[in-house]
This record gives sequence, structure tokens and C-alpha cells, in this order.
Amino acid sequence: MNTDGFSFELQATRGKARAGILHTPRGDILTPVFMPVGTLGSVKTMSPDELRAEPIDAKIILGNTYHLYLRPGMDVIADHGGLHGFANWDRPMLTDSGGFQVFSLSGSNKIDEDGVTFQSHIDGSKHRLTPEVSMEIQGILGAEIAMVFDQCPAADAAKPAQDAAMRRTTAWAKRCARVERPAGQSLFGIVQGGLDVESRLRHMDELVEIGFDGYALGGLSVGEPPPEMYRILDAVADKMPDSTPRYLMGVGTPTDLYRGTSAGIDMFDCVMPTRNARFGTLFTSEGKLHIKNARFRRDTGPLDPACPCYTCQTFTRSYLRHLFKCGELLFARLATIHNLSYYARLMRSMRNAILEGRDLPEIPDANS
Amino acid sequence: MNTDGFSFELQATRGKARAGILHTPRGDILTPVFMPVGTLGSVKTMSPDELRAEPIDAKIILGNTYHLYLRPGMDVIADHGGLHGFANWDRPMLTDSGGFQVFSLSGSNKIDEDGVTFQSHIDGSKHRLTPEVSMEIQGILGAEIAMVFDQCPAADAAKPAQDAAMRRTTAWAKRCARVERPAGQSLFGIVQGGLDVESRLRHMDELVEIGFDGYALGGLSVGEPPPEMYRILDAVADKMPDSTPRYLMGVGTPTDLYRGTSAGIDMFDCVMPTRNARFGTLFTSEGKLHIKNARFRRDTGPLDPACPCYTCQTFTRSYLRHLFKCGELLFARLATIHNLSYYARLMRSMRNAILEGRDLPEIPDANS
Repeated sequence: MNTDGFSFELQATRGKARAGILHTPRGDILTPVFMPVGTLGSVKTMSPDELRAEPIDAKIILGNTYHLYLRPGMDVIADHGGLHGFANWDRPMLTDSGGFQVFSLSGSNKIDEDGVTFQSHIDGSKHRLTPEVSMEIQGILGAEIAMVFDQCPAADAAKPAQDAAMRRTTAWAKRCARVERPAGQSLFGIVQGGLDVESRLRHMDELVEIGFDGYALGGLSVGEPPPEMYRILDAVADKMPDSTPRYLMGVGTPTDLYRGTSAGIDMFDCVMPTRNARFGTLFTSEGKLHIKNARFRRDTGPLDPACPCYTCQTFTRSYLRHLFKCGELLFARLATIHNLSYYARLMRSMRNAILEGRDLPEIPDANS
Repeated sequence: MNTDGFSFELQATRGKARAGILHTPRGDILTPVFMPVGTLGSVKTMSPDELRAEPIDAKIILGNTYHLYLRPGMDVIADHGGLHGFANWDRPMLTDSGGFQVFSLSGSNKIDEDGVTFQSHIDGSKHRLTPEVSMEIQGILGAEIAMVFDQCPAADAAKPAQDAAMRRTTAWAKRCARVERPAGQSLFGIVQGGLDVESRLRHMDELVEIGFDGYALGGLSVGEPPPEMYRILDAVADKMPDSTPRYLMGVGTPTDLYRGTSAGIDMFDCVMPTRNARFGTLFTSEGKLHIKNARFRRDTGPLDPACPCYTCQTFTRSYLRHLFKCGELLFARLATIHNLSYYARLMRSMRNAILEGRDLPEIPDANS
């Protein structure tokens, strides 16, 4: 697969770590990159200009097929010519396939070889997703990167269940690849295989055989201890094709991003910086802090002295704590600006280190 | 009273309506003006730059003494050199005296000639406000305009209760006027008297006798029918001193602002635009609308075609409805930007009409 307008340019390596540029018809994505998650067509609390502005300067954001299919529904998105028009986002987007949420969120689900029947977590209504339906929905959403419809088993699933998920994911990946996509939409395959290196490598071969614009590792950070994920990353990431981007789905902490990048991953997404922000947990150059802590009550210093974001340049820890304690909506937004800035700057600092032939910068322990 | 750095410049009149400039040490306030309410040191969902940006361009915002005294507490505000530093607001501010909330919000309150003992609505803790304490708190908050500590009786209070409130408000106003204020802080008196014109005029005379930098009408929009308030405005507003600003407290709807301005009022404040926004009620040039209405589901037009605000220039009604229905935090902010823009533009259009010798522009009925 080599979708028109898409190419991955490898710029430099440092050990297994890679710096590159993913060229897309809507603009370049500098890698390694963290992609903020816009579940329902909004990266929670953020306006598009805030995401575009320095230091966040998001080059790509995510949308969730499962959520957007249920609300507002595909007719509404189609009226806007796709998710870009709906959310007023003019840079690249990536949509997942809906598979992960069908298995993790829906009221109940019943899987068969053809697809999955599930109940909406909102109103219990019945729906069915198949590889073809997922691709149709993702076609309407119109992101630059679509993902194959996969089955993501639980972290502690036994080998037979893992094997079945791989087999099914491969069969579904083939069906997804056969669906015609709108111009300007690429498709990534998803490697399953749980915590078994041999399974991962075998499944990867199956997907490479089909051929995709990029490859993702699915089924990680789903409950297993971090060292287990790191073991898989260290053994698998750099064996993924060199010529296409490598995406670690749903990950993770700053330390996870450091470990993933070190292992050769190019792309990450996670709700962690945005969700943690809303709950008052903030990543800083000095480690993670919980803003509700009483020690910040009269702290007139900035949240993170090393951070150039609007929040750190404008407000004190004391003020932010006050907003949080009072449930003021402004807090969630100021905290999100900061955490996304932290993540963006972290990725940029790793990218610069790779480009300049330096070791990746250390992550404060307290941010793991 | 003629506080250094404060003066009111009357620029033009049209009937009883006035256009002017309130000069303050922190900048000029063009009147008639609507002041967004920043209860807890934040105009809910808004960052200071959003409030400063066109078309909101707020020249002054409010802070609530009662709320800020309870949370975060005066030591925290003092650490920041006052409310301006705490909230990072560099333009003029006005603080109320705490009186209104003590009577309307506190768990219980006991009034005597010296002041009021009340229970916090948050944790039931006991506190006491007197005119001197209110002025001391307002001194620490450091707004350009402080308000006298008054007693605001219920709208349906009988004449003896109204008379007692006036008597007490006058006595307390004298005590407030005797307290030394920080440099750059003016003080406004508050006229009570309920719905009785004669009482209002008499009480106003008592306050003018003491002498303040401006005068406010309190105890209106507290439950009485709008025509009753308009009757008082029409009979009282233009009898307030010409040379100082006239402030109608806690009011109101777009129609109220039109009626108030027409009667000669210069300043307004109300939580209506911000609170309504969060609940999905939006003021537009075509009247008020409720964004959750099913007819907006596939409406790809702007919220208000006549509005230049970020929300109207960037998103569709369909997208806004989706955000509202999903409880996305971004909605509250986009809606607040719009409603505050609507209010700011309404005030500016009235001001321009007065300056240009035209009748005040009509308000759509549906915005009353």
C-alpha cells in the first residue's frame, strides 16, 4: 500500500530512536509525535487555535470512530464534509476503527467472524460494526489516517484467545484494505499478539504481507505492568518496517513515551495528559504534581518554571489550586494547555536530540 | 467624595440615555457598559485574554467579596497583591460589598445594627461582616470601585422592612465612607427603597448627602415583575446625580439593559449571559435560542450570522449542539464567548447611537 500524498521520510536515528517527517496531503507531521485525543470531535476544553498555537502546535489529532458514530451520527458529520469541517480542524487527523471501544465500552458485544454486534453505552441501542462498516464510517470522517478494524483482547487473555484475536485481526485487516478509501486517506495495520514476542513478530509479518501505509502496536497499556510493555517494545518496535511510521496506540506516561521513542516508535496517542489535567494532575519539569495539595495554597510561583505555555506564563500555582478547588471550568482548560504543552515539548526535545545526535533527555522519575 | 484619578465625563445624551467615559487609574470605561461577573476571580470559562479581545473587549469585570473572602481567603489574595494579580486582570475591577450574598446565599444570617453574622454556604463555618470589615476586605481585593455594605431586602418586603433596610444602609454607608481606602479605589453608594419611588428618591438624597464617587440602584431584579423595575428606573435613574456614574446592580436581560440605558443608567452587571451560556441559552440578533433544540442537529449555519465572535466565525450550530449534548467543556466556553460578545456589542450599539444622536437600536423581543 502506498497511498498518494503519503510518505515517511526518515531524517536521523540515535540507537533505535528515529526522527522523521510523515508527509500527508494536509501537512507534515514531525516525528516522534504525540497526538492529542479528540474523542467526540473536541480535544476536551481546547479550541482549535489553542491546539495549533505554540507550544502545543499539534500537527495531528485523533477522533474516535465509535463515539462519533453514536454521537452526533454520520449524517451530521457528512453535512460538514467530514470531521475536519465539523470540528474546524485543518491539520491532519487520525481515526481509530471503533474496535477498541466496542470491546471496552459498549454495554454488551457479540463477536463473530464477520464483525461485532454491540449495545451503545449511551442508550443501549444495538449496532453492528464490521471491517467494511468501520471503513465506511472512517471514510465519512475523512481523516488522513484510518486504522484497520481489529480485535483487541484483554491483557491477561490466554494464548488461544490471543491467537484467535490475531487471526481475526489479520482477516479483518485484509477486508479493510480492500475497501476503497476517499482520496487523501491512508490506512494503518494493527499488530496484536499480547505480551508474547514471537506472536507479535509473526502477526506483524502477516500485516506487512498485506501491506499498509503504517503499522501500529495495539493491545498494549491495557493493564499489563509497564516493564512487560517495555519488553515487547524493545523486542518488536525496531523490527517494524523502516520505511513507514510506527504507532504505539493508547500510550502513555512521559516515561512510556521516552521508552517507546527509544525503542523506535514514531507516533503515540493517549488521553492521559488531557484527562489528568481535568483531575488536577500536572506534569512538570520537576515531576508530576497534584494541584489540590495544600502546599500550593499560597504558592505564587508558576506551575512549571521551565514551561513557556500560557498557563505557566500567566497564573500562579495558588490561583490554579483555587480554580480547581472551586470547580471553576477555567481550571480544566488551563491545566490541559499545560499538560499538552508538556507532552509536545517532551516529544520535540526527543526529536531534537535525535536530529542532533544526542542521547534522549531524561524524564523526571515522578512523571512515570 | 472625589477619589483621585476618578472622574466621569458625560459625552452625549439622547433623551435620558447617556454616553460617557468613567476615567480610572487603570484605564477608561466607556459607558453605558456591561460588566461580566467574575465571582471567584474568574469569569467562568474565560481567560483574561479572551475577555480583553474583540468583540468582548471588557473594560471592567466584577469580583464577589463574599465568595473570595471564603475562598481562597484574604491571605492568598494579599499574597498576590490583590485580585488583579491573583486573576491576572490588568483592567479596572469592581467588587461588591458581600452584603447581597450574605442575605441570599449564606446558611443562616443574623443582622444587627453593627453588621451581620452568617454561616458559610460551603462548610457552615461562622463569619461576621460589618461595614468596616467589608471595606477592609475590598481594600485587600483592591478593585478600582468598591461598594458600600448594604442591606438588600426581599422584593416583597413590607414597607417597615424596606424602611429599616434604608435606614441601616445609610448608617452603614456613612461608616464605609469613613474607612480609609487604598490609593486608586473609589466608593459607590447603594440606593435601596424597594418599589416605592418616593422611598428611592429619599434614600438617594441621604446617600448624595454623604457623597460618593458613584451611585447604584440595589434591590432590583430580585423577583419583582420587570414592569415594576422599569417603573422605578423611569422615575429614579435620571434623578441620580449627573456628574457621577449610575449603576444598576445585578441586571439583566438585553431588554433590561435597553430599558436601563434608556432611563439613564450607565453601568450594569449580571450573571445572565455567562450562566445562560453554560445552560445552552444563547442570545442572537434573531432572538434567544436553546442550542439543544433538535432543529439545530443538522444546521450548518453559524450561531448568529450577524456576530463577529470566534464562536460564530468558526463553528456551526450543529457542532455547538453536539458539544452541548455530549457535555463537552468546550461548549460552555464557546457559548460564553458568544453571549458576552452579544452583550458587549449591544452596549456598544447603544453607546454609538447616543453619541451619534440616534434612537437606541431595538432589541429582538425574544431576548427579553
